[in-house]
Amino acid sequence: MSILITGIAGFVGSNLARRLLTSGKSIFGVDNLSLGRIEVVHRLVEEGVRFERVDIADFDSFQSTITKFHGMDPITEIWHLAANSDIPKGIQDSSVDLRDTFITTLHSLKLMRQLGIPRMLFSSTSAIYGDLGQQLLHENIGPLLPISNYGAMKLASEAAISAAVEAHLVQALIFRFPNVIGVPATHGVILDFVRRLKANPQRLEVLGDGTQQKAYLHESELVDAMLHVSACSSERIGIYNVGPVDDGVTVRFIAEETVRQAAPGAEIAYGSGGRGWVGDVPRFRYSVGKLLGLGWQPRLGSADAVRLAVRQIVAQEHGRK
Amino acid sequence: MSILITGIAGFVGSNLARRLLTSGKSIFGVDNLSLGRIEVVHRLVEEGVRFERVDIADFDSFQSTITKFHGMDPITEIWHLAANSDIPKGIQDSSVDLRDTFITTLHSLKLMRQLGIPRMLFSSTSAIYGDLGQQLLHENIGPLLPISNYGAMKLASEAAISAAVEAHLVQALIFRFPNVIGVPATHGVILDFVRRLKANPQRLEVLGDGTQQKAYLHESELVDAMLHVSACSSERIGIYNVGPVDDGVTVRFIAEETVRQAAPGAEIAYGSGGRGWVGDVPRFRYSVGKLLGLGWQPRLGSADAVRLAVRQIVAQEHGRK
Repeated sequence: MSILITGIAGFVGSNLARRLLTSGKSIFGVDNLSLGRIEVVHRLVEEGVRFERVDIADFDSFQSTITKFHGMDPITEIWHLAANSDIPKGIQDSSVDLRDTFITTLHSLKLMRQLGIPRMLFSSTSAIYGDLGQQLLHENIGPLLPISNYGAMKLASEAAISAAVEAHLVQALIFRFPNVIGVPATHGVILDFVRRLKANPQRLEVLGDGTQQKAYLHESELVDAMLHVSACSSERIGIYNVGPVDDGVTVRFIAEETVRQAAPGAEIAYGSGGRGWVGDVPRFRYSVGKLLGLGWQPRLGSADAVRLAVRQIVAQEHGRK
Repeated sequence: MSILITGIAGFVGSNLARRLLTSGKSIFGVDNLSLGRIEVVHRLVEEGVRFERVDIADFDSFQSTITKFHGMDPITEIWHLAANSDIPKGIQDSSVDLRDTFITTLHSLKLMRQLGIPRMLFSSTSAIYGDLGQQLLHENIGPLLPISNYGAMKLASEAAISAAVEAHLVQALIFRFPNVIGVPATHGVILDFVRRLKANPQRLEVLGDGTQQKAYLHESELVDAMLHVSACSSERIGIYNVGPVDDGVTVRFIAEETVRQAAPGAEIAYGSGGRGWVGDVPRFRYSVGKLLGLGWQPRLGSADAVRLAVRQIVAQEHGRK
């Protein structure tokens, strides 16, 4: 009996894999290594993960790999985390999100049907809600109007999973989370700031006026919450917001914290406007009441999560462990 | 200045085209004629529609056709109605809905961006809501858990349109409607019953126990409502349920009405269970309050719509006009 993680070289995937290994699970992993790092995979393989580099948007390759894995040790659930997580890249070229975020989901579902794999756990996103202003975002809200291709293809994936539950899956659990931070970091605002400050320790230029506020979740909290839901939810199809219980922190806070840890004294230059780039939702209020109702307790607020992640990412980028 | 209708040979598309022609609009139409009928297109062409047979899931073909049309007479809006409307077919082979329902939407959006076409009107479906039991289905309800690939790919399309509004569209109006009936009919329960009774006028076999209840909308009402919203809505992205104000009629009512008009005296044999086939939502309550709030007034209830459609479809199938 084993678990397959798609996108295992990503920072959610790799941390999830480590936690599952710790609890004695047998883990298979796939990743195309377009965003994930090979060093991360090497460490996971040393720890017992059976890995294959495969682009699961290529159906035949994915079918061949998963069939081999399933023959070695029957797969009972797939944590489908593979996706294009680079939102600006998806805005440049909409086919990236279609292929890497949506088609990968369809292929996973098709193979689960073929092989009789009953259970899917899926990493969705708060981006599926779009820009609903100051409305509290709980799982029962609508209409869902994502403003990025990334959000659109995650919502499309949720829809396909929902239809698959009717047709063949035994259970599907969907996690909608906002900006997740931690290491190994491959993209995101903190990494961007750390790299800019490494290039120029005197000055940090920030897109937008710095007032954009978001909830940030540390990967360790996310993994905790997902494993909690996986263990406790009895819904046939369950959708869970995952996030900190606070309203988040501003870009200004992140900039100041990064400067403090990475380049004390650097000047911070802000742009104008409350929105940094197309597809970026400026501010939202996020409900995690359903998750708390299932008995989960958060440990880190957004500010704690940012402080911890800045420390980890500075270490990552400066070659310290 | 012109309007492009995709899926123009379908029964919503052809009736919409006729109504728009009547009000003096210049109409281009495309259809792959997989479900639509060529005779319908011949009549539309006689009435002034400029038509090209093209499979818009093939991007290059669609690009070539739309670019030619746009050069002849600039297109200001696309009514994107092309889709696989055969739900059981999509259950057999999920790639049908992916290609004909979702990829066609992505291609439409991509070409609208390339050519600067500002406005999209999209035929979605009540199937995006899935099976929410006795909850009143209004546009702000969630979570959206479609139980068919058809519903999933319509929801995926809504999501992609939403992202396109952020990126380039000036306005998008999305219509979510339940079972639409009328002629030219290419599929659906009434056509199925009429054909069964033509083959065997003594006996009609019905899937399920006949208690499934749904709201039915006549195409003339749907076209009315969509044109009303198109004229009156000022939302940048507006989602509208369209349907009758009643709670619908049962399959038993439809069976009895069809027998009455097509084969009086035929015996009706019911199966068991409240759900006819996988992907079929047994019963729902549908809110059209938002549409009514925009000043639209329905004329036909579900029962009237069914009576009218049975008469039209019996005539269609028996070669009478």
